[in-house]
Amino acid sequence: MTKGRILSGMRSTGRLHIGHLSVLENWLELQKENQCFFFAADWHALTTAFDQTAGIKENIKEMIAAWLAVGIDPEKSVVFVQSDVPETAELHLLFSMFTPLGWLERVPTYKDQVQQFQEQGKDIMTYGFLGYPVLMSADILLYRAGGVPVGEDQVPHLELCRELARRFNHLYRPVFPEPKALLAQVSVLPGVDGRKMSKSYANDIGLVAEPEEVYRQVNAMVTDPARIRKTDPGHPEVCVVHKYHGIYTRERLAEIEADCRGGRIGCVACKKLLAGGLDAMLGPIRERRREIMARLGYVEEVLREGARRAREEAQKTMALVREAMQI
Amino acid sequence: MTKGRILSGMRSTGRLHIGHLSVLENWLELQKENQCFFFAADWHALTTAFDQTAGIKENIKEMIAAWLAVGIDPEKSVVFVQSDVPETAELHLLFSMFTPLGWLERVPTYKDQVQQFQEQGKDIMTYGFLGYPVLMSADILLYRAGGVPVGEDQVPHLELCRELARRFNHLYRPVFPEPKALLAQVSVLPGVDGRKMSKSYANDIGLVAEPEEVYRQVNAMVTDPARIRKTDPGHPEVCVVHKYHGIYTRERLAEIEADCRGGRIGCVACKKLLAGGLDAMLGPIRERRREIMARLGYVEEVLREGARRAREEAQKTMALVREAMQI
Ligand code: SF4
Ligand code: SF4
Repeated sequence: MTKGRILSGMRSTGRLHIGHLSVLENWLELQKENQCFFFAADWHALTTAFDQTAGIKENIKEMIAAWLAVGIDPEKSVVFVQSDVPETAELHLLFSMFTPLGWLERVPTYKDQVQQFQEQGKDIMTYGFLGYPVLMSADILLYRAGGVPVGEDQVPHLELCRELARRFNHLYRPVFPEPKALLAQVSVLPGVDGRKMSKSYANDIGLVAEPEEVYRQVNAMVTDPARIRKTDPGHPEVCVVHKYHGIYTRERLAEIEADCRGGRIGCVACKKLLAGGLDAMLGPIRERRREIMARLGYVEEVLREGARRAREEAQKTMALVREAMQI
Repeated sequence: MTKGRILSGMRSTGRLHIGHLSVLENWLELQKENQCFFFAADWHALTTAFDQTAGIKENIKEMIAAWLAVGIDPEKSVVFVQSDVPETAELHLLFSMFTPLGWLERVPTYKDQVQQFQEQGKDIMTYGFLGYPVLMSADILLYRAGGVPVGEDQVPHLELCRELARRFNHLYRPVFPEPKALLAQVSVLPGVDGRKMSKSYANDIGLVAEPEEVYRQVNAMVTDPARIRKTDPGHPEVCVVHKYHGIYTRERLAEIEADCRGGRIGCVACKKLLAGGLDAMLGPIRERRREIMARLGYVEEVLREGARRAREEAQKTMALVREAMQI
């Protein structure tokens, strides 16, 4: 029954940028052959930003609209918000009872992230942040998902989820399958300034960006600093524009590279080429997003129906869990 | 609205013994003037016994029957089971997000209990055990209780609960009152062998014990080892029987003490006096418990109605919480 069931979530920390596109394209592939559960992870967002909750609801709505615009099909997949399924909190609490502290303290990203935030002057050493992998495990196991698309950095979290499934099955009664990690080939794009793409650096390009934003941001991209004149031979490997061409204008990449190295194309023209390609790709998404937002109450309706379907499955699992635990 | 609202819970780890009577007598006092919420803490029981869940349901039923037999009035007070109110798990999760780990690690009982269990060869250093005070805070604040009867050892837990209430009110919007600790004068009785009274030592007397058990256990009580003959002068201060007389036969305590020191009463007679008094007190409770259990489905009905009333309040609070957090 849960074979071919996939679960994946995305934090609702702000508007999506084109860096999210490869994740969503992976979801579209998965959606074709599997029963997918896609959720907006508003509780996860709290683990690192409990003090910045203003706008969460609006962010979720925008994010869901973008998912739908890209092609996530709410008839086929279950699209919902994490906090609309309170059973998640209950399963999280039950799991917490038999999760050794050591398992959580050993998750490699834990200490790293604590330190990263510390450098930004922020203390996230909370009980909830430590327990993030328990919450993620509850998200996954509540639907008895068989597979979870993860990035490399999430592999230890999924391993912990599998350990919790095993521990539950062993302590009480077999209820949970051990979900498999579906390692996705996700291309990581830098921001226009060459740093990590992030809304907080203002170096990102929105997934539903208007043409002006696309052109402005492509224009701001860092190129080979050694090129002054068009005829100077370029080094595309140090150029952000070139990285984007590698994804969005792949069919002309070899030609662009050769022209850059040979001093036959200027950076302005090269950027124009990219901006045009990018905008042509984002245009239809932008358009569909506009249509979706114009349908009053549509996103809300999608989420209501998604929550209903998600809770139906969640309640089945919780009945099995309570029976197995005899509580 | 929440003025005069009291919350208190009891772990459902086994049958109640007469040591619980003073807690219940305190509840009866509170019930007179306040709106009380009394709950069976089955999730709390998991924090130290996640691997011993068999019989939890039966234990709960027995415990509730004993509460009712003692005089807890389900028309007046809300009598329910913790796990019947899933909102508790949700509030616990939300609180976890802004509970600094340091607050939990500093709770004095935490390290003590971990060590105590370690000496019994049991590792309880789980995520859930560390978070026990967060769960307890959720229990209390979910009903916006104004007072909580606590023993000395629970005062730090309640202090943490008050800190969480303040932190929430400060981060988001004032939703929670800071519950007051109602320090109860609870008399702690030793077991018949002089150690701590505990089912696991088999040194307890059941709250609904049959007369045979009462007589057998009183008979097994450790007395002054220096007394061989009745005429030997006794030292009541080292005698378990004397401690019980201090509570159950208080009106004759001075006389018994004098007779013991003067070698005018034998231990057998002294025990008989206690057993008679104890049994006279437990008899009516035993009888009412029998009547309650004979009413098929009655305890279940009490708990169903209690859960309904508890959830009604819980949902009001959660609506305020979600609104304040904007999620
Ligand atoms: S020509 Fe294009 S690839 Fe070469 S440096 Fe300029 S922008 Fe980069
Ligand atoms: S006479 Fe009573 S109080 Fe004195 S030692 Fe014997 S049992 Fe204890």
